[in-house]
Amino acid sequence: MQEPLVERAVVLAEGRFGVATSKTATCLVRYVPERVVAVIDSTKAGQVAEDVVGCGGAIPVVASLKEALRFEPKMLVIGIAPIGGGLPPEYRTVVVEAIRAGLHIVSGLHYMLNDDDELAALAKEHNVRLVDVRRPPDNLPVGQDEAWLLPIFRVLTVGTDCSVGKMVAAWELTRALRKAGINARFCPTGQTGCMLAGWGICVDRVISDFVAGAAEALVKAAADAEIAVVEGQGSIYHPGYSGVTVSLIHGTAPNLMLLCHQWGRTHIKAYTTPIPPLRRVVEDYQRIASFTHPSRVIGVSLHCADLDPQTARSICAETEQALGIHVTDPVRLGMEHMADLVISEFVKWKSSQRS
Amino acid sequence: MQEPLVERAVVLAEGRFGVATSKTATCLVRYVPERVVAVIDSTKAGQVAEDVVGCGGAIPVVASLKEALRFEPKMLVIGIAPIGGGLPPEYRTVVVEAIRAGLHIVSGLHYMLNDDDELAALAKEHNVRLVDVRRPPDNLPVGQDEAWLLPIFRVLTVGTDCSVGKMVAAWELTRALRKAGINARFCPTGQTGCMLAGWGICVDRVISDFVAGAAEALVKAAADAEIAVVEGQGSIYHPGYSGVTVSLIHGTAPNLMLLCHQWGRTHIKAYTTPIPPLRRVVEDYQRIASFTHPSRVIGVSLHCADLDPQTARSICAETEQALGIHVTDPVRLGMEHMADLVISEFVKWKSSQRS
Repeated sequence: MQEPLVERAVVLAEGRFGVATSKTATCLVRYVPERVVAVIDSTKAGQVAEDVVGCGGAIPVVASLKEALRFEPKMLVIGIAPIGGGLPPEYRTVVVEAIRAGLHIVSGLHYMLNDDDELAALAKEHNVRLVDVRRPPDNLPVGQDEAWLLPIFRVLTVGTDCSVGKMVAAWELTRALRKAGINARFCPTGQTGCMLAGWGICVDRVISDFVAGAAEALVKAAADAEIAVVEGQGSIYHPGYSGVTVSLIHGTAPNLMLLCHQWGRTHIKAYTTPIPPLRRVVEDYQRIASFTHPSRVIGVSLHCADLDPQTARSICAETEQALGIHVTDPVRLGMEHMADLVISEFVKWKSSQRS
Repeated sequence: MQEPLVERAVVLAEGRFGVATSKTATCLVRYVPERVVAVIDSTKAGQVAEDVVGCGGAIPVVASLKEALRFEPKMLVIGIAPIGGGLPPEYRTVVVEAIRAGLHIVSGLHYMLNDDDELAALAKEHNVRLVDVRRPPDNLPVGQDEAWLLPIFRVLTVGTDCSVGKMVAAWELTRALRKAGINARFCPTGQTGCMLAGWGICVDRVISDFVAGAAEALVKAAADAEIAVVEGQGSIYHPGYSGVTVSLIHGTAPNLMLLCHQWGRTHIKAYTTPIPPLRRVVEDYQRIASFTHPSRVIGVSLHCADLDPQTARSICAETEQALGIHVTDPVRLGMEHMADLVISEFVKWKSSQRS
């Protein structure tokens, strides 16, 4: 289960390699650069990842699969998530070429490669695997409200909206916890997280009745660790996705929640729905969690990407002052102190479990 | 869309015809007795529906499909929802027999008859339809937060738990509104409701990201009526299904909510989760609805099935006194006054829309 899904990978991001246009490709070169041998984008060929997305070091950007093959890849990873989730024709051509070259294909698209008769037959012929990361496992159960009984401490990232850094916050918190000597496990619920971690369930493809059960299954699968850090989805304020968020809360039964927000965002993206003041957001999340089990927001992960580091630092400090809980930018200011706070709660919980 | 799905139907409830054991069969004979020609249950053959489930009048209960055929049915409706949602072997035999006799089959099972190669081929051969009520439509959209913009007043039934009468309350309220001269439309979200109304979407089969969109689609489809009464599902307190409930709230954007509760129930059925005091339940539902649009709980539909009518009446009166909103048992005490309260709010809303 913890075996890497992504290894010696060529990441396909043709025409779209960039922080805003290829979230999956960017997260792969940022977090697992040692598993990426090259990125394909002919419009940026000759550069290295660091030039294009500010991370990933010397990973080369190449113009074609043919060029990428000299780095001896084992797989091709589709590094974009286009609107609608389909496989663009120009991408399909590269996928076909890669299968013929003996590469496994890893895809996080809504479009299921395994349901494509032509690709499936070709993959069989060349003895390669088509991995549809978004395909949920069969026979997920209805949530049984059992996560709180497990011998593992549970932290869930929650947010004011989509795309405010819930995956990044969960990943960075896990990393900081591990650095501090805790056996922490990142539990992914979206395609990028699943590719990074090599396991997980993409809950946006799960039938509504089973989303809480999927979250519970993730926590159960991580139960040999000390702390599970579950990647949240959506927001309780999101008119389209609020149900998914609530299912993850009740399925995870988190001991703690880490609230994620993008600085300056006042409304749900693409909707007119206002985001309440953060103090109110904290109360609302705690109230909804308490329907099944009490939970507390331990701090705020504030995505300050548009600000210079000094301004980001002072905004985090001001927000911390106003809310009375720790606030940090996970990428610029780090998650170390947040991890310490989590560990302190974990230790209390552990000793209460013993008694 | 409003064409009856169920007509001249034989309802199959072999071995299980009863209020507690065949919810679908019971609701069909209670609410659309004129569309049911017979019920099959060999263990109760010779009786009439009224003897067995207290409603449905003289609808005969027969021992076999063969006997039922003399009432010249057009279709066989599967009147049970067994745990797991499969098609029991003894039911399958009757379904095969019915297809051979030229009857259409209507099923609300999780098991999709159309995906069963043998049944699908047989149906084609005999030129009959297999209607899988639970199959959601393809290409449901993500909720767009547009229901509140429609020229229709929206009422959603919500509950303290599953099986507390949300379908019945929505159906009875629609009936009372229509009796009062309002063009009200029942919008079903579960299999029994879909069978009764001849349309709807079973949201428990919808992929999580699209449940709010499904609710919005239902309201849009009803938008030529004056009031949409949407059947709710689950409960915000249900550890397994809370996400579905929240999606329905934000997808419907209800002007009013009607809270359903079973008298005496203190915990979520089959879970240890407590149900808060009703006053708190009202607050919680109103708070969650307000994340996207303000809404108010207009009253309580109190399911008092285990009590004698006199006790039911006084319990409703006491609860009404305590909460300060109208409380009624929908089946014993009726929904007339609730309908009047809804109409009064509808009239205010309509005049505010004009101005």
